[in-house]
Amino acid sequence: MTVGDLGEFGVIGRIAGRLPQGAAVLLGPGDDAAVLSAPDGRVVVSTDLLIEGRHFRRNWSSGYDIGRKAAAQNLSDIAAMGADPTAIFVGLGMPADVTTDWLDALTDGFRDECALVGASVAGGDISRSDTVVLGVTALGDLGGRRPVTRSGARPGQVVAVAGRLGHAAAGLALLQAGRVGPDVVSGPPADRSGAEGRVVAGDGEIEEWLSVLVDAHRRPRPMYACGPGAARLGATAMLDVSDGLLQDLGHIAEASGVRIELDPDAFPVGPALAEAARALGADPLEWILTGGDDHAFAAVFPSDIRLPDPWLVIGRIAEGQGVHVAGRADTWGGWDHFRNSRG
Amino acid sequence: MTVGDLGEFGVIGRIAGRLPQGAAVLLGPGDDAAVLSAPDGRVVVSTDLLIEGRHFRRNWSSGYDIGRKAAAQNLSDIAAMGADPTAIFVGLGMPADVTTDWLDALTDGFRDECALVGASVAGGDISRSDTVVLGVTALGDLGGRRPVTRSGARPGQVVAVAGRLGHAAAGLALLQAGRVGPDVVSGPPADRSGAEGRVVAGDGEIEEWLSVLVDAHRRPRPMYACGPGAARLGATAMLDVSDGLLQDLGHIAEASGVRIELDPDAFPVGPALAEAARALGADPLEWILTGGDDHAFAAVFPSDIRLPDPWLVIGRIAEGQGVHVAGRADTWGGWDHFRNSRG
Repeated sequence: MTVGDLGEFGVIGRIAGRLPQGAAVLLGPGDDAAVLSAPDGRVVVSTDLLIEGRHFRRNWSSGYDIGRKAAAQNLSDIAAMGADPTAIFVGLGMPADVTTDWLDALTDGFRDECALVGASVAGGDISRSDTVVLGVTALGDLGGRRPVTRSGARPGQVVAVAGRLGHAAAGLALLQAGRVGPDVVSGPPADRSGAEGRVVAGDGEIEEWLSVLVDAHRRPRPMYACGPGAARLGATAMLDVSDGLLQDLGHIAEASGVRIELDPDAFPVGPALAEAARALGADPLEWILTGGDDHAFAAVFPSDIRLPDPWLVIGRIAEGQGVHVAGRADTWGGWDHFRNSRG
Repeated sequence: MTVGDLGEFGVIGRIAGRLPQGAAVLLGPGDDAAVLSAPDGRVVVSTDLLIEGRHFRRNWSSGYDIGRKAAAQNLSDIAAMGADPTAIFVGLGMPADVTTDWLDALTDGFRDECALVGASVAGGDISRSDTVVLGVTALGDLGGRRPVTRSGARPGQVVAVAGRLGHAAAGLALLQAGRVGPDVVSGPPADRSGAEGRVVAGDGEIEEWLSVLVDAHRRPRPMYACGPGAARLGATAMLDVSDGLLQDLGHIAEASGVRIELDPDAFPVGPALAEAARALGADPLEWILTGGDDHAFAAVFPSDIRLPDPWLVIGRIAEGQGVHVAGRADTWGGWDHFRNSRG
């Protein structure tokens, strides 16, 4: 069955029927607008547009993974302000021949990613479109905390990250090179969250590591709690790494009027990145420094704060401008949606 | 110059530079997320996805009008809950060959429509896309009022509308029939808000009336204040008419478990609709009852409430179900985004 068979209101009913609503949703889907609780008296809002062929490919990612990824990249923006996500809203454009199975998987992906942080899919809009288009907006609550912006970094403070770097970029490179087929990891909703940590051995070992990276491309795993956690620890600046560490830290350097100095030896290259770099003849550090889409948090803290796991100190703030790696100015690039180039 | 020449961050800077931020915006564009004031402790949220070729055509509407329309249809959803809109967020996908002039006009359209209600364009996202795609999310504040949903209508109450009906549908029909050229109304940002009321005479009279309708298709003019106003008056149910009066009132009938009886003689057919109906051999009442996109408010009130202008009583609530016109069940249809048919 396709969404064209169901019709607009059938589709809306089908989606809404799969979405539980949390306590923060005072009025959920089905009216002109939803009503959410905003106990802080302020609300944090972020929006993203995801276009098929540009942000995802249906033959490389399942509907379930696309839903998880689309939710994750918005929820991580909220957490990167130091807020707790409360709800997302999804504008969904799709062709009439999309199957209801695919739609259900997409819906479940949104639902399950939101469930990780106690948020709800509280509303949306559907439309016909030649390709799949997702307009996702996430909201969050600051719980009385100051929002952690990009402009608070000061010389003498340290830069730290929480979460994976370069994994999604390496996974995308593997898919683009045809090094692994799109079916390397089986479909939704199998839980592969422990994949990276498990002990693998034998002939399939390399393929298993590569599949971890392809999976990372399909579905980021932001360490959501680290966002509000960093705010509580006293972070002075923060963002989620979506376009590449160097480019994104450049935003902090510019907004704060400081220079950021990174220590390239601070980044551990795990076995997955090492195997992928060997397979493709690539430099794993380039993925780590310029790869987007893992949605790690990068934050700046006063140097006297004792940072708990999983925060990893990668550099420091100095007087000046720009992002420097071991004393050298950044010569890597990041992602520009219009120029679409690296360098 | 095109947006491809500017690059992603150039485009973002150019858009943000044209957007003043109101007092409700505590942190505006430029970070991972915006922070808005939510003094009520609740926030009203609605989202819409607009796809080129389906919701608008760049050869039929200017960038300015597309921005105004996209903002209007979201802001009216907020007002239809009885809330005051505070901000909108815009996900914008567009081809690299879009000119900066067009982008500026679009931005100004969003800005000017928001200014009508004191709202700000507080954030967004841009991406490259083969066609123009707009994901718009609007937020609002209830100011201590109960949200006016679709489920509160009770037998004995009256149904009233505030705003135009059928104008946008007639304008679209005129464009589709080639009866008027796309250049019938000159480009942005000329103010034609008084057009419908002015006295016209002479040979150009008919064309002038038709141009009013084409203009209505390009740019709805919701009577925003009527939304929160209806909540203050004691409205028991409300929505904005976006898919056609009969279809939309059907949502109130269903959600409230009531029958809605409309009086077809209650709808005045103005000169613009009359001329267009004559030109196309159409029934103006069909536009009024089934045409979407004017974003009039339709609300239900207790019968003892004295309704001020511009509210117009068009029917009453009875026991039963469905929407009936002069005792006859609705045989007109509305708009279904997947079935794309009327009937």
